[in-house]
Amino acid sequence: MKYTLSVLVENETGVLTRISSLFARRGYNIESLAVGPAEQIGISRITMVLPGTKRSVQQVIKQLYKLIDVVKVENITDVPCVERELMVVKVNASTLTRPEILEIAHIFRAKVIDFAIASITLEITGDPGKIVVIERALSKFGIMEIARTGKVALTRESHVNTEILKNLVSMDK
Amino acid sequence: MKYTLSVLVENETGVLTRISSLFARRGYNIESLAVGPAEQIGISRITMVLPGTKRSVQQVIKQLYKLIDVVKVENITDVPCVERELMVVKVNASTLTRPEILEIAHIFRAKVIDFAIASITLEITGDPGKIVVIERALSKFGIMEIARTGKVALTRESHVNTEILKNLVSMDK
Repeated sequence: MKYTLSVLVENETGVLTRISSLFARRGYNIESLAVGPAEQIGISRITMVLPGTKRSVQQVIKQLYKLIDVVKVENITDVPCVERELMVVKVNASTLTRPEILEIAHIFRAKVIDFAIASITLEITGDPGKIVVIERALSKFGIMEIARTGKVALTRESHVNTEILKNLVSMDK
Repeated sequence: MKYTLSVLVENETGVLTRISSLFARRGYNIESLAVGPAEQIGISRITMVLPGTKRSVQQVIKQLYKLIDVVKVENITDVPCVERELMVVKVNASTLTRPEILEIAHIFRAKVIDFAIASITLEITGDPGKIVVIERALSKFGIMEIARTGKVALTRESHVNTEILKNLVSMDK
């Protein structure tokens, strides 16, 4: 089972390292991590995905609260959320294959962010599922490089069940 | 001075923790971190931004190579790159303010990803500069929550000086 935590921390020097060394010391594993400034000045939000059991995650939350820089820990695993990640991908492209690559880019609302004689670089955002689908679609051209962020998530104010909403939202992608 | 490293690692259990504890042990600071699967199966790419001197960064690179999971470390600080990060932002919105928020979203090519009676949630990608500008533009409505990823970067195959290209690329955003 995978758990998603949204953690607010004071962005003091070395807070990331302090949190990671807590995980290292305790032998907890992190599957995905995304860090950036939050809504308040001086506060960062860390979105982390942790494999584990309900009990091990409760332990992690307890340990996180012991760190002086940690302001708030929310377990948003079962809360309706918008979840997004970002992929930048460089694909082999010739004058022959370029039209098909651009067609795929259009379908997934990807943006062309670099263009060279033998390659195209695309930027794509979406939930982890969409990212996998476009990666597969592009793989036949030969993927040169990929850089991906971890997942970020915010709770939905609409409080709509995500499963129902997924169909609705996918039209917008 | 800030340095950007693109690090390829085998995504064994706990690799993130091993890297972070290296940083903790040595007292190196990490300003931004983005992790995700890379182009090869079983390999992850970590994009990290480090404050420091040329010498301290060379030290970090040396230490990283000593870790068994680390496949390749590239210092892409002075290489032409596409750099992107992702922000998800929840803003107060009423029937009165909604049109202006949607106008700002349109200007920045942001996508509406959730919609409630009193709020709108937007997804925005761009270089760190663009992210700051839209955050400022939205702040007057009252920002409820922000989740941001670290920066990801890939070298430009076009080998064009980024400063010149920025004007060109900004049209596409």
